[in-house]
Amino acid sequence: RCGLKKRGHGSRSWIKIDLLGNISILELDKATIMRRCSLPGRDLRLLDPLFIYPSTILGREKAIVVSFEQIRCIITADEVILMNSLDESVVQYKSELCKRLESNKDQSDDLPFEFRALELALELTCMSLDAQAQELQMEIYPLLDELASSINTVNLERVRRLKGHLLALTQRVQKVRDEIENLMDDDSDMAEMYLTEKKLRSEGYPSSDLGFQTNTSHEETIVSKSAPVSPVGSCSGTHKLQRAFTSIVSSSRQGSLLSSSNCGENIDKLEMLLEAYFVVIDHTLSKLLSLKEYIDDTEDLINIKLSNVQNHLIQYQLLLTAATFLATIFAAVTAVFGMNFAATVFDHPPTFNWVLVISGVACGFTYFSFLMYFRYKRIFPL
Amino acid sequence: RCGLKKRGHGSRSWIKIDLLGNISILELDKATIMRRCSLPGRDLRLLDPLFIYPSTILGREKAIVVSFEQIRCIITADEVILMNSLDESVVQYKSELCKRLESNKDQSDDLPFEFRALELALELTCMSLDAQAQELQMEIYPLLDELASSINTVNLERVRRLKGHLLALTQRVQKVRDEIENLMDDDSDMAEMYLTEKKLRSEGYPSSDLGFQTNTSHEETIVSKSAPVSPVGSCSGTHKLQRAFTSIVSSSRQGSLLSSSNCGENIDKLEMLLEAYFVVIDHTLSKLLSLKEYIDDTEDLINIKLSNVQNHLIQYQLLLTAATFLATIFAAVTAVFGMNFAATVFDHPPTFNWVLVISGVACGFTYFSFLMYFRYKRIFPL
Amino acid sequence: RCGLKKRGHGSRSWIKIDLLGNISILELDKATIMRRCSLPGRDLRLLDPLFIYPSTILGREKAIVVSFEQIRCIITADEVILMNSLDESVVQYKSELCKRLESNKDQSDDLPFEFRALELALELTCMSLDAQAQELQMEIYPLLDELASSINTVNLERVRRLKGHLLALTQRVQKVRDEIENLMDDDSDMAEMYLTEKKLRSEGYPSSDLGFQTNTSHEETIVSKSAPVSPVGSCSGTHKLQRAFTSIVSSSRQGSLLSSSNCGENIDKLEMLLEAYFVVIDHTLSKLLSLKEYIDDTEDLINIKLSNVQNHLIQYQLLLTAATFLATIFAAVTAVFGMNFAATVFDHPPTFNWVLVISGVACGFTYFSFLMYFRYKRIFPL
Amino acid sequence: RCGLKKRGHGSRSWIKIDLLGNISILELDKATIMRRCSLPGRDLRLLDPLFIYPSTILGREKAIVVSFEQIRCIITADEVILMNSLDESVVQYKSELCKRLESNKDQSDDLPFEFRALELALELTCMSLDAQAQELQMEIYPLLDELASSINTVNLERVRRLKGHLLALTQRVQKVRDEIENLMDDDSDMAEMYLTEKKLRSEGYPSSDLGFQTNTSHEETIVSKSAPVSPVGSCSGTHKLQRAFTSIVSSSRQGSLLSSSNCGENIDKLEMLLEAYFVVIDHTLSKLLSLKEYIDDTEDLINIKLSNVQNHLIQYQLLLTAATFLATIFAAVTAVFGMNFAATVFDHPPTFNWVLVISGVACGFTYFSFLMYFRYKRIFPL
Amino acid sequence: RCGLKKRGHGSRSWIKIDLLGNISILELDKATIMRRCSLPGRDLRLLDPLFIYPSTILGREKAIVVSFEQIRCIITADEVILMNSLDESVVQYKSELCKRLESNKDQSDDLPFEFRALELALELTCMSLDAQAQELQMEIYPLLDELASSINTVNLERVRRLKGHLLALTQRVQKVRDEIENLMDDDSDMAEMYLTEKKLRSEGYPSSDLGFQTNTSHEETIVSKSAPVSPVGSCSGTHKLQRAFTSIVSSSRQGSLLSSSNCGENIDKLEMLLEAYFVVIDHTLSKLLSLKEYIDDTEDLINIKLSNVQNHLIQYQLLLTAATFLATIFAAVTAVFGMNFAATVFDHPPTFNWVLVISGVACGFTYFSFLMYFRYKRIFPL
Repeated sequence: RCGLKKRGHGSRSWIKIDLLGNISILELDKATIMRRCSLPGRDLRLLDPLFIYPSTILGREKAIVVSFEQIRCIITADEVILMNSLDESVVQYKSELCKRLESNKDQSDDLPFEFRALELALELTCMSLDAQAQELQMEIYPLLDELASSINTVNLERVRRLKGHLLALTQRVQKVRDEIENLMDDDSDMAEMYLTEKKLRSEGYPSSDLGFQTNTSHEETIVSKSAPVSPVGSCSGTHKLQRAFTSIVSSSRQGSLLSSSNCGENIDKLEMLLEAYFVVIDHTLSKLLSLKEYIDDTEDLINIKLSNVQNHLIQYQLLLTAATFLATIFAAVTAVFGMNFAATVFDHPPTFNWVLVISGVACGFTYFSFLMYFRYKRIFPL
Repeated sequence: RCGLKKRGHGSRSWIKIDLLGNISILELDKATIMRRCSLPGRDLRLLDPLFIYPSTILGREKAIVVSFEQIRCIITADEVILMNSLDESVVQYKSELCKRLESNKDQSDDLPFEFRALELALELTCMSLDAQAQELQMEIYPLLDELASSINTVNLERVRRLKGHLLALTQRVQKVRDEIENLMDDDSDMAEMYLTEKKLRSEGYPSSDLGFQTNTSHEETIVSKSAPVSPVGSCSGTHKLQRAFTSIVSSSRQGSLLSSSNCGENIDKLEMLLEAYFVVIDHTLSKLLSLKEYIDDTEDLINIKLSNVQNHLIQYQLLLTAATFLATIFAAVTAVFGMNFAATVFDHPPTFNWVLVISGVACGFTYFSFLMYFRYKRIFPL
Repeated sequence: RCGLKKRGHGSRSWIKIDLLGNISILELDKATIMRRCSLPGRDLRLLDPLFIYPSTILGREKAIVVSFEQIRCIITADEVILMNSLDESVVQYKSELCKRLESNKDQSDDLPFEFRALELALELTCMSLDAQAQELQMEIYPLLDELASSINTVNLERVRRLKGHLLALTQRVQKVRDEIENLMDDDSDMAEMYLTEKKLRSEGYPSSDLGFQTNTSHEETIVSKSAPVSPVGSCSGTHKLQRAFTSIVSSSRQGSLLSSSNCGENIDKLEMLLEAYFVVIDHTLSKLLSLKEYIDDTEDLINIKLSNVQNHLIQYQLLLTAATFLATIFAAVTAVFGMNFAATVFDHPPTFNWVLVISGVACGFTYFSFLMYFRYKRIFPL
Repeated sequence: RCGLKKRGHGSRSWIKIDLLGNISILELDKATIMRRCSLPGRDLRLLDPLFIYPSTILGREKAIVVSFEQIRCIITADEVILMNSLDESVVQYKSELCKRLESNKDQSDDLPFEFRALELALELTCMSLDAQAQELQMEIYPLLDELASSINTVNLERVRRLKGHLLALTQRVQKVRDEIENLMDDDSDMAEMYLTEKKLRSEGYPSSDLGFQTNTSHEETIVSKSAPVSPVGSCSGTHKLQRAFTSIVSSSRQGSLLSSSNCGENIDKLEMLLEAYFVVIDHTLSKLLSLKEYIDDTEDLINIKLSNVQNHLIQYQLLLTAATFLATIFAAVTAVFGMNFAATVFDHPPTFNWVLVISGVACGFTYFSFLMYFRYKRIFPL
Repeated sequence: RCGLKKRGHGSRSWIKIDLLGNISILELDKATIMRRCSLPGRDLRLLDPLFIYPSTILGREKAIVVSFEQIRCIITADEVILMNSLDESVVQYKSELCKRLESNKDQSDDLPFEFRALELALELTCMSLDAQAQELQMEIYPLLDELASSINTVNLERVRRLKGHLLALTQRVQKVRDEIENLMDDDSDMAEMYLTEKKLRSEGYPSSDLGFQTNTSHEETIVSKSAPVSPVGSCSGTHKLQRAFTSIVSSSRQGSLLSSSNCGENIDKLEMLLEAYFVVIDHTLSKLLSLKEYIDDTEDLINIKLSNVQNHLIQYQLLLTAATFLATIFAAVTAVFGMNFAATVFDHPPTFNWVLVISGVACGFTYFSFLMYFRYKRIFPL
């Protein structure tokens, strides 16, 4: 039970990518990272590679903790610390991020460093999950069509296996989707993630100072000073309302809206970024869910088909059983005349033919009336 | 994996429809559109024709990105850029929009350009989806009634195919419905879509300037100037509250409500527009869902029916098996007397009749007691 | 595809009921109604009788558009325009509304005209739906009990038909319930529906003018004038907060709360009205849902029962098959001695008895060991 | 259809319990109660005993309408009017409430009269529902275990009956739970229920007057006067925000928070009361839901088990059919030699033995190869 | 029925752990605890050990009532009162909490006492539930794979048992998850839990006094004094909005934000703590849910497989029945010639061979045509 605590204490290999796209590989233990990124041990545990696939984005004081599938990293305002692994998506993340950071201009919108790192993680994850969904789809559709026309144990086993994969993939996609949705729903969490801005502000209020130092009225100065006291709250859940307030109250006092409007704009930026990937992952999810329903529908109809075939089989068997019964009756009748009694009946040879004809006709007639009866009882043409 | 990035870079054919209903066909590449409509590449990717059917409406800075089924367009304050395609609904959208823009008066309510373009997209999409739902309904109901009375493999295969169509259509309708609902739920997103108004304001505040330049008190001027600083925020999620505030605070200072009340009124306009189409698409969805449930109910009862028929079949088979058993017994008895032993029993000819009568009566009695036993065990009249 | 637009352009018969309960029958075309009630064509389409059963309440500028099952009407501050139809509930609505409007006093609470009309529509709809649910319940419960004890095709077909009815009715009830719930959740929509109050205010502010003209301070006058500028917003989604505000801010300036508190009170009135019918319709819905679940439970158990009976049938068949096998063996043994060889075995007559006894005992013993084996394999007493 | 209106007009027997625990039995008709408790007729209809089990709590102007299962009462600030009935829980409610009102001290928290009455109704209802759930659990678990080991028609019928009970009980519990949850979610509804406080305030503002009469500043007096104007709104949905406001605004004016903080505290009291019973009823609900799922799981496995047993039965039958087939073949072979032809084959007696040996061995070998074939086809050891 | 009240009145053994990690074991009765922690009897009932497993966290005036699985404790600002039990997790909680309180430094973030106690309860509960989920997973997966390949009654019974466990565990995990989620959703409930801070404030405002006593302006003092009047409300549901307000309003009056910003920061602390454990428990839940779905999927496919095997069995039986029928026919034909008539047919010995050949060929041909017919009817190769 103490395992959970022990794990992750040992030092592990991390990849550090700085603002300029320089890569270095470091050996860091948990404590160092906790100090470096001001993270409690609790949060680091979520990156643990032994803890499989719970996609998470956590906005913390000075870092964003990202754990998307294989990409597990801590994004700060200055660097990305990426958990080293030979996994393809980690390698791709590393190289692609460097490329993008070096060629600064290919993205038209100028996102801060932390969001460019976050976007890449989102992009690679969404693409990789969508590719996996696509692959599964490619495999399942023909299999189901095959199964619908001919059912066999091997195919059933394959469907079971693929349903397991589908279920696992759906859960992973759902988790990523929910994580993005939750983030989009909570404006204060999004505001929390403006690491670069928070850092700039805490380092010397360059932007707001520039804006306010020309003010002379006593009251306004107080506004400009008090606002940064709660930098988080100032872009919080009700940030729009607050912006409205600020604009009304402070404007009636000639205050400036620089810092808060800035922040509001940025939340829009992050929101738009998340929204675009939300559409993608949501589409992947709905693909998987419809795949699941398609399997279920196919199974329902296979069940009906099997029952239907079974009924037909039993119908034929019923016909044959009836025929067997009558053949047995016929055999019994003839056996009667095979008994070794010296009965008088045997003395009249033509009886031989009469016995055959009469019992044959009787059997035929009985069989025919069985058929009529079944048809009358409506169990026969089904 | 880089495919997603590459796709859409090449130039593609677009239809431009301007405010007056003039149509021109343009070849635009991604970069041009990004510049023209101030959209990040991320958003344009959602219009990609290779990315099938994820209905989306995105309100951006200067454009609304609409992707409803086949109608994929970017609406700005001045023009609609529609992805060219031979699809019927695209052709219809093009011609109908021009017709409406030219004959300005047939819509009693004077919606701005962007909403007229949006409404048409909504209208065509809802109508087309409803027509498809109707068609599916027409096809499924008789098929199910047929299936309920006579089950055969061909019909089962058709039901499976139609269930697949139904599932896909339901998802597409659901997506459109969710998109409209989400938009209606988020006042700030709706406000974001007032492109014409935003453009007018950014070009020279004509309306508010006119309203305020006559004010003389220092304080009011500040209100009028500060309000447009956050034009989006001013109609945000809590816009009603804010309007209330503004009205209270500013009114107590003789301020004007022109700009904000204007905006609030407009949100109502868009909300009412969306609401009307929401009712339509929601009705389509509920039709599809009830169709799905109807199929499921029919399947349930088909299953019961099949099991029931099967039990009847097995009952008859049981009766015949019992009869066969007794016939075999009778045959065995007669065969006994066919053995070629010179036993004394054969010396008494009337025994022949006694054997027949006794074994016949015994078999008949046994059969009757089987029937009684099954009836007693309650497995027979079911 | 243009059908949707064309429909409803022709004039149709409407029943007009005014404030005093006078009834007149009018022929109105769409355009006239649009002008008369300031409704966009979009909203009128929802009343179209070809568009079946989507219950809706829409609060518009000067009218409430109500479409509850057969009762499709437009309620304004002065009159109810009811779509004419021979349907029983329309007739009942017409006569009952007149009766209530004439005898003003039987309702203790003095609701404005529009709510009395709305309440009657709600009441008749809820009662009619509940009666239909009751009827269905009456029909389904005995049918299921019958089905549980004896399954036959006719009953199965009836259950399928009733499940179809149940599904349709559930959806209609659900729609009414959702419509009431959505309305109750959105205070601003409810406020929008105070047509009489809105009309009075727009005609000459009689109430507020009376209240405020005695005020002398400059500031208060402004409050009283500015408040009605946004009559809708003043009772909006956050009306309570706003009321709180108003009370604080304006009271600290000796302002009056007449208009806004008035409005808040009224929302409570409409809310209480809706709440009471919500309880009724919600009860109807839960009745229907429990009916559905009861059917499902019964079906589950019918399935188990059928499988169980089937197994019993097959058990008996197994026993009979085993008996037949042994009878055949016995017959085969006796047939052996019926062969016409001149074998020495036939020379010893008592062998006849020995053959019978030995093979008889052997068969009996084998049958008994079959029984033991099945019991040992646990497939027998099930 | 007019029945709904007529019902309840006749006078009915009610139990009145006043503040001191005095009980009197009254005959009241609907109109009297409507006047006495300021309730519209609409609300009284919900208490109608013919309208079965829709648990509801409605907070009205001067009364709380409570309808929990059998306990149907109207709670005002001064008295509880309880619908008379011989039901055990009504009797218990009556006696327990009197006992508690007399011995005032046994509840440590001093709740006002209306909440003590409400709490008792909640407590008795939760306890009674939990007891019923417990009982059902006691009955269902052993039944299912019995069913899982031996399926018979009587038990299936019992399960069906108990599932019906479970369904009904679940709905009733769900209804109570939802009612409590809805109430807890809506602060303004909870505030509405402070009947005693509302009555005190409307009678002479004793608490706030005491607090404010010592104030001299003009502004504060206004605050103290204006606050009670909207006594409901002052503890409304956004009461906490408002309290914050009040505290800020009024405190900056040296105002007192007496009345509003009082109200906020009380909401906490009611919330805590509801929360405690919510935990209880929610636990009951989850017990019932898990019972339902347990039944479903058992049914699933019974179905598999039945199919599995059936397959085993059919396997044995297949074996026996094969054996019967071969016995028939053997009998046919021997019958061949029983034909009365004077064929030369009968002249050689040892052929008798050869026929037996050869056909016996052939049958045995064929049977063995059947077994091998089935095993090879994998349908045999299943 | 009075049992619920009686239970828990007797004194019970509790473990007290104070701020320094000292442990003492006390015998406390209900009344003492109610007084000591200012809790109503209602809340204490939820800790009752007879009331099994409803995980709950309740924030009360001076205590947090925690009931997580076996860990049932009351946390105040000074001590943890833990219900004594021999359960492993209680023992572990006791020892681990003392260890952590003694070695103060191993947690980098300095949480107040109540949260350290709460965190440990959360941690142990989440770990224990996750371990149980893991265990169940270990047991179920191989069992299902075994079942998928070979179905037998023992395994089915084990699956049923494990499904019962899974269901119970899922509910317990769900309950813990919901409890954490609800808490995280309600900021005011989280604020309520800052016991240490609330205690400090009520004891003498040390922090705020220090901050404010240097202020000289009359207005600020009022702010500082009035703020603590509603200590709960000041960090309430809309705390961020309020903080924004406070910052704007009070800052415009040079007020300090010390106390309120402090509180806001702390809510973040508790929120971050809960968030981390929410991720863990949510992961556990999704593991269990996917386990459930995996079982369901396996069951679906087992059903199909069983039906499929059954159809194959019936096919073979059909073939054998057909063969038996023909063998009987053959035997009947030969029996015909075994009849003891002196027919002329017997006089021609070669007829013997002709009879055999002709009837043999006829039977063979008939059998072959059966096969052809079945194949033609498509019921044979399935």
